[in-house]
Amino acid sequence: MKIHKTSIIEDGAKLGSNVSIGPYSHIGKNVILGDNVVIQGYCEIGVHSFGDNKKLLQIGDNSLIRSKSIFYTGSTFGPKLITGHNVTVRENVIAGKNLQLGTLTDIQGDCKIGDYVRCHSNVHIGKTSKIGNFVWIYPYVVLTNDPTPPSTQLINVVLEDFVVIAVMSTILPGVILREGTLVGAHSNVRNDTNPNTLVSGNPAMEKCLASKIKLKDGSKKNAYPWIRHFHKSYPPEIIKEWKRKFKN
Amino acid sequence: MKIHKTSIIEDGAKLGSNVSIGPYSHIGKNVILGDNVVIQGYCEIGVHSFGDNKKLLQIGDNSLIRSKSIFYTGSTFGPKLITGHNVTVRENVIAGKNLQLGTLTDIQGDCKIGDYVRCHSNVHIGKTSKIGNFVWIYPYVVLTNDPTPPSTQLINVVLEDFVVIAVMSTILPGVILREGTLVGAHSNVRNDTNPNTLVSGNPAMEKCLASKIKLKDGSKKNAYPWIRHFHKSYPPEIIKEWKRKFKN
Amino acid sequence: MKIHKTSIIEDGAKLGSNVSIGPYSHIGKNVILGDNVVIQGYCEIGVHSFGDNKKLLQIGDNSLIRSKSIFYTGSTFGPKLITGHNVTVRENVIAGKNLQLGTLTDIQGDCKIGDYVRCHSNVHIGKTSKIGNFVWIYPYVVLTNDPTPPSTQLINVVLEDFVVIAVMSTILPGVILREGTLVGAHSNVRNDTNPNTLVSGNPAMEKCLASKIKLKDGSKKNAYPWIRHFHKSYPPEIIKEWKRKFKN
Repeated sequence: MKIHKTSIIEDGAKLGSNVSIGPYSHIGKNVILGDNVVIQGYCEIGVHSFGDNKKLLQIGDNSLIRSKSIFYTGSTFGPKLITGHNVTVRENVIAGKNLQLGTLTDIQGDCKIGDYVRCHSNVHIGKTSKIGNFVWIYPYVVLTNDPTPPSTQLINVVLEDFVVIAVMSTILPGVILREGTLVGAHSNVRNDTNPNTLVSGNPAMEKCLASKIKLKDGSKKNAYPWIRHFHKSYPPEIIKEWKRKFKN
Repeated sequence: MKIHKTSIIEDGAKLGSNVSIGPYSHIGKNVILGDNVVIQGYCEIGVHSFGDNKKLLQIGDNSLIRSKSIFYTGSTFGPKLITGHNVTVRENVIAGKNLQLGTLTDIQGDCKIGDYVRCHSNVHIGKTSKIGNFVWIYPYVVLTNDPTPPSTQLINVVLEDFVVIAVMSTILPGVILREGTLVGAHSNVRNDTNPNTLVSGNPAMEKCLASKIKLKDGSKKNAYPWIRHFHKSYPPEIIKEWKRKFKN
Repeated sequence: MKIHKTSIIEDGAKLGSNVSIGPYSHIGKNVILGDNVVIQGYCEIGVHSFGDNKKLLQIGDNSLIRSKSIFYTGSTFGPKLITGHNVTVRENVIAGKNLQLGTLTDIQGDCKIGDYVRCHSNVHIGKTSKIGNFVWIYPYVVLTNDPTPPSTQLINVVLEDFVVIAVMSTILPGVILREGTLVGAHSNVRNDTNPNTLVSGNPAMEKCLASKIKLKDGSKKNAYPWIRHFHKSYPPEIIKEWKRKFKN
């Protein structure tokens, strides 16, 4: 266990075996870190809001939290959470296995997130968002929640499995992106989508089935469903399952 | 007074009663903190530009600056400033009461900001912007200032009272958003607006009076002016004043 | 040499004369800092990825890296690199003289960047991007690289000399912005541009020659090419060269 001497570990924090904590990081008392977790420097893990110091924060085995990231209490992350730098995650997020959160990503709390979700840099996940499995969210995407800002209503976005949202797109309150939806870059999505379609523009309109799009590698293969060809960093059992699903 | 032992407080800094400073924070010599101010960890409060070490930074009573935030000198904030994490505020900002600045918000300096202004996460306020009272700015909104970039001209944006700007919108140099303007999500606003109208799109066009929009809570009530129904976290005397204004 | 006592300097780091390191900063063993370099507080300079601890990071003379910035190894920066706060730069960036990177800018690595490039706040430079000389990139601009996300293909953006990209614009994979292209605010650029043209909108379309745009200072002078009138902070020999180029 490599705990940097300048780090602050509060009494009560539970650290699994082989945990590593970088310089100047602060681990709160209600934190439970799994085995082999790496917390880099300048992180704040287990921040609690005023008047609420009982909730736990659980980080699964083999996770890597890069420097300057901030996690509040009340959340549970499955194994192999991997973050970039400067990530902020507010209270009450329940996330599955192998969530990846890019540098500067900001999760506002009260969210449910499935397995193997990847958020690139600078993604903003509004409060109460619901995200399925195998979802990809690219830089500067915003999931919103207030239909008539400012109001006391929160109407969450739903992203079903295998959704892909390209850069600089906003998903408006209550919108459901159905399984396999592809949102083009710089889009403003105001309506629910049909499964496996490409939507794009402002306002976003349905353009075609995503399966009409070809890879740009000269192979003339379909680019979507992406799980047919993109297998990097998923475990073999997942890829086997995908192959069963998309046999033709 | 709870001053963490790892914090650096320069000689000359003036701390009100019951001030709290978190771990690894750095308070400069020209800083004046009001009573009950909380500065969380890893903050830099009172940074000065090269060759300019005389300007003061004043933070009003009962303010809360969350961790990793950076404030330059030359600015004055009224009471109850509240920030998220990783906020950056450059020189010469004059702000009123109860300004809220969300995580990652970046204020470029030389701005005037009224009372009870709320900026969500990741808002970018260009230099010399002028913001009235009770304004709401949502994530990834950018207020610009250079009409022909790059140039030496700065033509500031003006946001009048009660303006609301939804996510991912840009306000171009010199644009005046009149009182009660609502800017829809993902808009690019190139022209001055009429009071109490909804503008949206790229380029943003006037769509209707904001008062045509209904709440999405089934009540069939008007969503705008929002001050008729949204009173959360404003003091009673303000709400009384609003009721007088919008009696019908 | 002013090295703050709380900073961590690993054995092997090479510091030029008159280098200054702020509080709580961490300088890795493979770092080479030129003369008169200033590293402010809370920086991480010379971070290396797992299993790769041999690459160097070189920062040229007279550079200023503002607080909370993170630089990985494998990169080389010419003299007078200047950054804002909270900048992140991943591996293998080769940059020329006087690069400026605004607060929260995120460079994903494997990029080539010319001389005198200016990125404002919150710019996102995708992996493998190629940027020429004298380029200006404004806040919330994203340079992308994956044509069919997610895929294993990276098709980089190319920005030729004197390109200007206004706020909140995305440049799609493989797009070449020819010399002197001006991209209007809030644009989504899907196609290569012609030199010295204005493109804008979503999708971005060619609007006119950039030289049709006038300065907004009442002078009736052309705003573009901007190098005719905007000389702030460039050295005299550069301005002389520009004058030769644009004599008429």
